[in-house]
Amino acid sequence: MSYALSVEPANWWVGMKKNTITLMLHEQNIANTQFKLLPYQGVELTNATRTENPNYVFLHVTISDTAQAGTLKFNSSDNNNFSFSLLERTKNSAEREGFSSKDTVYLINPDRFVNGDKQNDTVSGMLEKVNPTFKGGRHGGDIQGVINALPYLKDLGITQLWLTPVLENNMPDYSYHGYAITDFYNVDPRMGSNSLYKSLSIKAKDQGIGLVMDMVLNHFGAEHKWMKDKPSKDWINFNGEFKNGKNATSHARQTIQDPHASEYDKRQFNDGWFVASMPDLNQRQPLLSEYLIQNALWWIEYADLSGIRVDTYSYSDKAFLTAWTKAIMDEYPHFNIVGEEWTSNPAIASYWQRKKVNQDGYTSSLPSIMDFSLQEALIQALNEEESWSTGWVKVYQSLANDFLYPDTDNIMVFADNHDMSRVYTELKQDLAKTKMAMTMLLTTRGIPQIYYGTEVLLDNTPSKDHGDIRIDFPGGFEHQQANAFTGEDLTADQHSMHTMMSALLHFRKTSPALTNGKLTHFSPKNGVYSYARLSDEQTVLVFLNKNAQTINQELDYMKEVLPHNTKAKDILSNETHMLKSKLTLKPMSATVLVINK
Amino acid sequence: MSYALSVEPANWWVGMKKNTITLMLHEQNIANTQFKLLPYQGVELTNATRTENPNYVFLHVTISDTAQAGTLKFNSSDNNNFSFSLLERTKNSAEREGFSSKDTVYLINPDRFVNGDKQNDTVSGMLEKVNPTFKGGRHGGDIQGVINALPYLKDLGITQLWLTPVLENNMPDYSYHGYAITDFYNVDPRMGSNSLYKSLSIKAKDQGIGLVMDMVLNHFGAEHKWMKDKPSKDWINFNGEFKNGKNATSHARQTIQDPHASEYDKRQFNDGWFVASMPDLNQRQPLLSEYLIQNALWWIEYADLSGIRVDTYSYSDKAFLTAWTKAIMDEYPHFNIVGEEWTSNPAIASYWQRKKVNQDGYTSSLPSIMDFSLQEALIQALNEEESWSTGWVKVYQSLANDFLYPDTDNIMVFADNHDMSRVYTELKQDLAKTKMAMTMLLTTRGIPQIYYGTEVLLDNTPSKDHGDIRIDFPGGFEHQQANAFTGEDLTADQHSMHTMMSALLHFRKTSPALTNGKLTHFSPKNGVYSYARLSDEQTVLVFLNKNAQTINQELDYMKEVLPHNTKAKDILSNETHMLKSKLTLKPMSATVLVINK
Repeated sequence: MSYALSVEPANWWVGMKKNTITLMLHEQNIANTQFKLLPYQGVELTNATRTENPNYVFLHVTISDTAQAGTLKFNSSDNNNFSFSLLERTKNSAEREGFSSKDTVYLINPDRFVNGDKQNDTVSGMLEKVNPTFKGGRHGGDIQGVINALPYLKDLGITQLWLTPVLENNMPDYSYHGYAITDFYNVDPRMGSNSLYKSLSIKAKDQGIGLVMDMVLNHFGAEHKWMKDKPSKDWINFNGEFKNGKNATSHARQTIQDPHASEYDKRQFNDGWFVASMPDLNQRQPLLSEYLIQNALWWIEYADLSGIRVDTYSYSDKAFLTAWTKAIMDEYPHFNIVGEEWTSNPAIASYWQRKKVNQDGYTSSLPSIMDFSLQEALIQALNEEESWSTGWVKVYQSLANDFLYPDTDNIMVFADNHDMSRVYTELKQDLAKTKMAMTMLLTTRGIPQIYYGTEVLLDNTPSKDHGDIRIDFPGGFEHQQANAFTGEDLTADQHSMHTMMSALLHFRKTSPALTNGKLTHFSPKNGVYSYARLSDEQTVLVFLNKNAQTINQELDYMKEVLPHNTKAKDILSNETHMLKSKLTLKPMSATVLVINK
Repeated sequence: MSYALSVEPANWWVGMKKNTITLMLHEQNIANTQFKLLPYQGVELTNATRTENPNYVFLHVTISDTAQAGTLKFNSSDNNNFSFSLLERTKNSAEREGFSSKDTVYLINPDRFVNGDKQNDTVSGMLEKVNPTFKGGRHGGDIQGVINALPYLKDLGITQLWLTPVLENNMPDYSYHGYAITDFYNVDPRMGSNSLYKSLSIKAKDQGIGLVMDMVLNHFGAEHKWMKDKPSKDWINFNGEFKNGKNATSHARQTIQDPHASEYDKRQFNDGWFVASMPDLNQRQPLLSEYLIQNALWWIEYADLSGIRVDTYSYSDKAFLTAWTKAIMDEYPHFNIVGEEWTSNPAIASYWQRKKVNQDGYTSSLPSIMDFSLQEALIQALNEEESWSTGWVKVYQSLANDFLYPDTDNIMVFADNHDMSRVYTELKQDLAKTKMAMTMLLTTRGIPQIYYGTEVLLDNTPSKDHGDIRIDFPGGFEHQQANAFTGEDLTADQHSMHTMMSALLHFRKTSPALTNGKLTHFSPKNGVYSYARLSDEQTVLVFLNKNAQTINQELDYMKEVLPHNTKAKDILSNETHMLKSKLTLKPMSATVLVINK
């Protein structure tokens, strides 16, 4: 077997804090090759690491502060000479602001959003072809589609995009979801290219929209060359074998924290594979850890990212996660990274947040966590009858657990995502409830994340199959009649939802109270959950009335948050009135009042 | 209105760390009286505090280390002279050991346990008479009854008794439960007397059984003289008014921790009353705080207690709770106090445990907490079908949350108590499941608490009414045919349960692994939850098989806890065999194996 010489990463930059890098070289018997860096001011090839696999060599290169951009030339003892670019960084790259509670994040499955380039629906050399009628197949959506949708997203009031992974997934089937990466440094050609991805980032920024990359640290696609030719024998957990599910992960994430957990269960969780097609990476292997750290920094720098979303966060080695998050946050101190820790237990979720004081001494540099507890509570709250232990109290109690988080503003809140039934479906296609849910998310603490199409009530009523959840966006594909971009053939409910969300999203963008204000909430009573967001300049009051009747809400209990000025504007109706001692709440409705000081 | 002069406490002791005490004097217009302590070596009346109520005065007395036991004489400017005893302490009083994971605690409602003295069933001057056929009435059980039952309890294997409150509850109705205290310094005459209570403590100790007092800090009985004549205007929360429920507590305990809680909700929870008949004490009032601290120390010293259980813990002022627990633990460093914080959220429960590092900086000296999370999980585990999210996994996840507790051995575990439906009822009168539940509690970490009669399958199938839960103990009352003391007329199931529990309780008493060993548990699989308790001397293995079939359990996954010696004794069957690579688990059964090293 012979390979083309591959060198990863493709380049680096001068002026990075991360100034010792490791080049991973892959080629038949390359371990026997000796490399020499031709003299380059400020740059040194310090040493090389070899594993038991003769097809890999790892070159360690140090780039001093004085080094200038240019091309490094590596000579070899055989015909493996190569060059390596050191680029100039974008101005203020290190100072970039990550996504924050000022933003609203829109989550897209690019294969299912907009087919902007029909030429790349099927690409030769890629194992899976387009198959738009199969739920688990590729439908043709791509990065060009997202670029085309930017004006729509800006109009809607979105400020950040989170695309599920667009890197190469050259897998025989189900490759559309993107989580079985077969090349960590290249965009899948059916999605576009690295330069198109970068172009999306630049064009989005022009519209005031940031780009969040979805990164997978825990596993990769079984068609990656690492499976055929492991860089080291400990590169993949459980010796690279799935053993028909015997080495599957237990998903028992609590083994990380549990003082009583057995070593058996800890390993089964951490090292276990998701599925046979996604082998589990052993991040305890130092060369792999280094590879993943460099890969993240490379994409931030290359594509000018405003954030990272980390897939299946806690399944990776916890010491590695500290090193990985710390390396990124050291390089970009105002950046943001959100981890997916799918648990409704906030004691476990908050364990991973930066500055959390954990009893076991574990420290993390992860700034943001996803709030699965609130997601679950929100759906329950709207579906359940009100009682002392059901209904809105679920949301109230979920948020009360914020005492566990060191930074409650940097929590991502959502009603659904690409792995769970859509909010409109879960709320039994009830428009009023869906509006209440989204109003809650856009006005409570944290960073709201909206799953694509929620604004036009996308629905997976047929089933909870991922294919039904990740439904084609109306207007994104030729076969569709309805078009969310033009408004054509949308139902009245879809229009109504879109109008409501757009109004709230635009208000949110410039509201100091919603983006930075302190949250004070009140114990739900008689089916009404109410709270205030308070900033120096502004107070926003929110009332969520789950009753089928109009409620004449006494405001006496709210005294502590009511401002002196009582001229309140209703954001959703656009009416202004003076706040009295009672407030009329329409049946099954959200009321959002803004009072400027 | 005129009163007899009352002085509280009735006495104090020399050699206490708490050597500045406050005497609360109550009598018509006593605030006008001047008091003088006749010269007494080492004792000083430092000053007096008066409130706006002329009927109270508070004398502050300092007792130096050199003071000897004897009688203090206080002269007054009118005819309110009184004397006050300073007693010698019991030897090693300060060094007493509180209840611990070495113990099993037996919870008794004394009115419903044994009627040991029919003379005190109805006592003149007490508002409520005996009424054994009324669920909410007094049934005649008393302290003498508990004394009579001591040999039975010793035989069963019990080492600690927790009696629900026995202090005076001179209330017109529902006084049997004891939580509406009308005199904090005197046992209810229908229960016995202070000296009989002390005698119970001494006699129990002779049988190796400690006495835990149930204390109520949050509220008191509306018939207490404090309601008719408030010691200060701020003695009772919400200005001493219940207002038809407007001032009822919200039970929203999470307002204590919630960073978003409104001041309105915090007050409603903390200051709100349980019911009109139990006014809520304002422990922020320093004289009341001092009163409650002294009262606790008085009962520990007087009745030689081995512990305290605190009712409705978090409902009291949190700064006061720190002061109260600290005063007790400073006085008795090896003592134990368990707080009732009725929440299934361990993040909230653990907030109160001593040495917990809370994000808000709150510190507590409370050593022990009740594990409501595990109680709820245990019932669910046994009632639910097994799946990835139901059944045993509930117990596994509940215990995994132990990373939140600074001291996981000092947690009280229970399947039920006097405020909730009985375990046998909740498990639908399934003997096998009830045995599994009790085996789990007696073999996991913490301090097991058993509700009286569980050993003979007491049952509240008729209803969850407190009267049905707090059912008369068989053999404790004349009207009953069955007798748990003699075994007469018990069913075969009752005998079987009693035999099993007694065997396990006696084994537990001397098992280093169960009382002190490290817990290592394994993720439940195929309806089997298994764990080990590991001490230097001994390993105990527990297998809980919820299947209706015999299971041939492979032990490979347990390697890390299996000792070299494989001679295992089955505690419940008393059989000894060599441990092989597989173990036969009977259907619906608990297997407890002990292996001595």
